[in-house]
Amino acid sequence: MNTKTKQVGACVIIIGNEILSGRTQDKNLTYLAQILNEHGVQVQECRVIPDIQSIIVDTVNHCRRQFDYVITTGGIGPTHDDITTECIGVAFGVPLLVHPEIETIIHQRPAPEDIMESRMRMALVPTGAELVHSKIGPPGYRIENVFVLAGIPDVMQSMAENLVNMIAGGMQVHSRSVDAHLTESTIAKSLSDIQDKYPEVSLGSYPFFKDNIYGTSLVMRGTSDEQLEQVFNEVCEMIQAAGETPITGK
Amino acid sequence: MNTKTKQVGACVIIIGNEILSGRTQDKNLTYLAQILNEHGVQVQECRVIPDIQSIIVDTVNHCRRQFDYVITTGGIGPTHDDITTECIGVAFGVPLLVHPEIETIIHQRPAPEDIMESRMRMALVPTGAELVHSKIGPPGYRIENVFVLAGIPDVMQSMAENLVNMIAGGMQVHSRSVDAHLTESTIAKSLSDIQDKYPEVSLGSYPFFKDNIYGTSLVMRGTSDEQLEQVFNEVCEMIQAAGETPITGK
Repeated sequence: MNTKTKQVGACVIIIGNEILSGRTQDKNLTYLAQILNEHGVQVQECRVIPDIQSIIVDTVNHCRRQFDYVITTGGIGPTHDDITTECIGVAFGVPLLVHPEIETIIHQRPAPEDIMESRMRMALVPTGAELVHSKIGPPGYRIENVFVLAGIPDVMQSMAENLVNMIAGGMQVHSRSVDAHLTESTIAKSLSDIQDKYPEVSLGSYPFFKDNIYGTSLVMRGTSDEQLEQVFNEVCEMIQAAGETPITGK
Repeated sequence: MNTKTKQVGACVIIIGNEILSGRTQDKNLTYLAQILNEHGVQVQECRVIPDIQSIIVDTVNHCRRQFDYVITTGGIGPTHDDITTECIGVAFGVPLLVHPEIETIIHQRPAPEDIMESRMRMALVPTGAELVHSKIGPPGYRIENVFVLAGIPDVMQSMAENLVNMIAGGMQVHSRSVDAHLTESTIAKSLSDIQDKYPEVSLGSYPFFKDNIYGTSLVMRGTSDEQLEQVFNEVCEMIQAAGETPITGK
């Protein structure tokens, strides 16, 4: 029984020159948006920023005050361009410390001294951080309402699976969707009328071109299943009134 | 002959609930980052924001003062949830007008009156806007340093091909890259030394796991081909000194 009545929002901060240069396609936002919503947290904004200390510090400080949660991805590896933890320390004004639990994990794999020294960069966390464990390698961490995760999708996902148990989610947003072989313009007026009638449901219209046919996907999102059902039925009736069949299977 | 000496930066603003909800994977950032860099403009930040007027207005106004160029994608179709143009008008404090050239394009495809009325929403542009043509459907537009493009990747790309002729690019950032079957920790110290020696080159390190082998991609980015060549050679020597072969083919 879901008695939660509060909306809880998050901002995702993707840290990495490789995303901004177009070299790497980000996949973390989509994953985080989905898993967070399943736990009652809606991603309300995402920022992709470069590996520059002043920008990371300013962005984290701005966002952690504006959103219930902030999730960063990227920049927590062992090389010189991994500066996220240093920046989080500056943002919160706290020194970094070697976390004994991460140190133990890192020492489980033996290595020559200089390599171990580099790896030990990953044992540093800001004072007060709580670990977000991962099945793959060293953990990420949480400090206040900011979660600091890896950038590599597999590792990030393994951390996110634990992160969701560390947050207090609010209402979950549910969605319904239906496609129709109608152009957006054909149904724009009727859609707008339905949206006006149900202001608490977000009704999105997304054109597609598939198998040589133009169509529109209609997506309803909201916290009330009952209202979603009403909007869904009205949208389906509207499609039928326009002479087409609602396509709902997927 | 490239005599440009200035760095020119852009911010990409992706407008759309469907990206933030995780329903749709954004593909526009990667494309824009690549094509803009070919024309001497580096994407320095990206923001993904919802279809909410106050957020769109504030984000556009903040970013257009902070970056040389701003490129928005999404929200310029004919339905009620397409509010980008209205927001751009508010952001610039100018009224919208029906652009005669877009009106002509829209009227080329006949339609019943109510459908035409919806489509005509796409003929509205803020006063002072200059068109950014597309091979697919109605154009996007530019107002001052802000370019407003479609969200559908095919349409956005068709607009972006024309956009690049409307910007004054600066220096182009070139890149070189090499892979090695070495973990990041193994080479972290040597990499850091190379980075310190060449502060004007951005040297990124990205671990991968492919065909059951761990490795690291090393990516150098900078505006001087000569410096890139020097860094590239030093990185290759460093890989060989670590007992591995630099992998450069792709």
